[in-house]
Amino acid sequence: MGSSACRLCSSARRVSEQRRLSKRQLVLALDFGGTKLSAAVAVAGECHWWARRQVLSPPGVDARYDFETMMSLARALLSDQEGRLAAAGVSFGGPVNAAEGVVLLSHHIPGWENVPLRDWLQSALGVPVSVDNDANAAALGEWCFGAGQGYDSLLYVTVSTGIGGGWIVDGRLYRGADGMAGEIGHMVIQPEGPLCVCGRRGCLEAIACGPAIARRARERLRAEPEAGKPLRQLVDGDVERVTAEHVSRAAEAGDELAQQVLDEAARALGFGISGAITLMNPQRVVVGGGVAKAGERYLEVVRGAARANTLPGMRVDIVSAALGDDAPLWGAIALAGELITVP
Amino acid sequence: MGSSACRLCSSARRVSEQRRLSKRQLVLALDFGGTKLSAAVAVAGECHWWARRQVLSPPGVDARYDFETMMSLARALLSDQEGRLAAAGVSFGGPVNAAEGVVLLSHHIPGWENVPLRDWLQSALGVPVSVDNDANAAALGEWCFGAGQGYDSLLYVTVSTGIGGGWIVDGRLYRGADGMAGEIGHMVIQPEGPLCVCGRRGCLEAIACGPAIARRARERLRAEPEAGKPLRQLVDGDVERVTAEHVSRAAEAGDELAQQVLDEAARALGFGISGAITLMNPQRVVVGGGVAKAGERYLEVVRGAARANTLPGMRVDIVSAALGDDAPLWGAIALAGELITVP
Repeated sequence: MGSSACRLCSSARRVSEQRRLSKRQLVLALDFGGTKLSAAVAVAGECHWWARRQVLSPPGVDARYDFETMMSLARALLSDQEGRLAAAGVSFGGPVNAAEGVVLLSHHIPGWENVPLRDWLQSALGVPVSVDNDANAAALGEWCFGAGQGYDSLLYVTVSTGIGGGWIVDGRLYRGADGMAGEIGHMVIQPEGPLCVCGRRGCLEAIACGPAIARRARERLRAEPEAGKPLRQLVDGDVERVTAEHVSRAAEAGDELAQQVLDEAARALGFGISGAITLMNPQRVVVGGGVAKAGERYLEVVRGAARANTLPGMRVDIVSAALGDDAPLWGAIALAGELITVP
Repeated sequence: MGSSACRLCSSARRVSEQRRLSKRQLVLALDFGGTKLSAAVAVAGECHWWARRQVLSPPGVDARYDFETMMSLARALLSDQEGRLAAAGVSFGGPVNAAEGVVLLSHHIPGWENVPLRDWLQSALGVPVSVDNDANAAALGEWCFGAGQGYDSLLYVTVSTGIGGGWIVDGRLYRGADGMAGEIGHMVIQPEGPLCVCGRRGCLEAIACGPAIARRARERLRAEPEAGKPLRQLVDGDVERVTAEHVSRAAEAGDELAQQVLDEAARALGFGISGAITLMNPQRVVVGGGVAKAGERYLEVVRGAARANTLPGMRVDIVSAALGDDAPLWGAIALAGELITVP
């Protein structure tokens, strides 16, 4: 727009802009991940714009340390912004009682047992706070800002060190009777299958998550000394070092063994998703998490297995997540936004 | 747990009270079953009281004949009642496009392909009409008037000649993106299992429905000539005549083979339900249909298998349906009630 004639006008415009800035409502988004802490600030109703900060959790930290670190991130972010903080949303990487805002535990950091994180944050920030687990937050994030925009019902599935999920049903996050809806990783799909971290056998997670893919690849490399040359090269021959990412990279490079292992995991995931489609007939399924980055062929195998195990007439619309690792943080923005939405 | 009163009833009751001095509002409920037609009339807001009529479909009928027969039932019922018909609800034993009120087909009666049943009835009755399939109607019936009263989320499962289901989610019937939610009978639970009517292998229905129980019992009776004496007696030694009801009666009489066959089916059902609980964490699961009448031991085995395959912390509350074969008709009353609910 540049310089215009009237000094009075432009001065008035400046004052009104300052007023607008001081009146604008900010929302704070916090993501307590297993290994990193992220915070972002957004303007309510203008959720495309935001600033963010992120730190890695150093080893040996506890809940209180993480909380204080997160508060420093938040204060630094807010000091850069003009406006009034209106609400905060939190994604936590572990089981949460969302109704009470209480973290039940962290699988990574000690001291998170039964922590009233919502109350802690409400005291520190002086605004309403909403806390949920990372799978629900990511589902909400993908629904509001990512691959689920415009859909009334969707299942979000994240495939990384574990397998989790979250539901949007009839245009809202569905948490279930005990806040445990979406635990697709713990659907038993092979009753005689490998042991799961939950103590049962054959959960989807025990077959299709990252560590399961790596384990299966290592088993096969040990059993088939001539196979998997490209995969072996990636770990300098040290089979024990193989991760799911190595398997994925080797498969891309044409390693047959790696491709078979990855396909097997994708088929299991598709089979699990077929159960969810058969039961709930959602409009769309969004697949995120590190393993899902394996690419389009992986997703094509997932779709094929899901299609093969669902009734004709039921849509099988399975797509990649759009927000990557940021989905929970976007979801935290949505959680905060819910608190200041006029009903 | 939500409020105990049915939303539809209490809302309709309010309407009814407002118009206490004018003519009372009647709702008509119609159930097009595979072998019988049932109709009932209720007073809106007084859903405990009703009159009903029922006829068996004679062999060789078609859609038009069924429709005319149902209209005679309805006219006879309404002529006995004082009041003004306000709406009608319909349960249909086959796939329905509920949004359009169109019956897609009947597995039992010819001529039901793509029949605009809602339009037919609206023309004939002159009131708004809502049509849904029998599993959804029964879910709604059990939720409003039966074993699901007061629950915000529940899965209704019916086990008879097939296995179907319906969901109540966040206090309303959830139909899914293609109107096909709740198809628990077609969750594949044994990929190498018996052939299902849908053409795939190992669907829950192919293992746990009535005909599957009968088939399994016949297989075992043929393979084990010394076993199953009480069961054989029930069919005068003619193994081919064995039905699921015979199996259930023989099990009650202490027949070990029959009990094993029934337990096997109950475990499969519990396993399928465990998948639904893991995914959706509903407050309650209500099991209806002819096979579920096998009794408390059957249900105990279902519960055990569901509990063994779900995460600790998730409730496993599985109960018998309360309304028996009348659940779809009660559901039709609720469907009609929805139409006269003031928003």
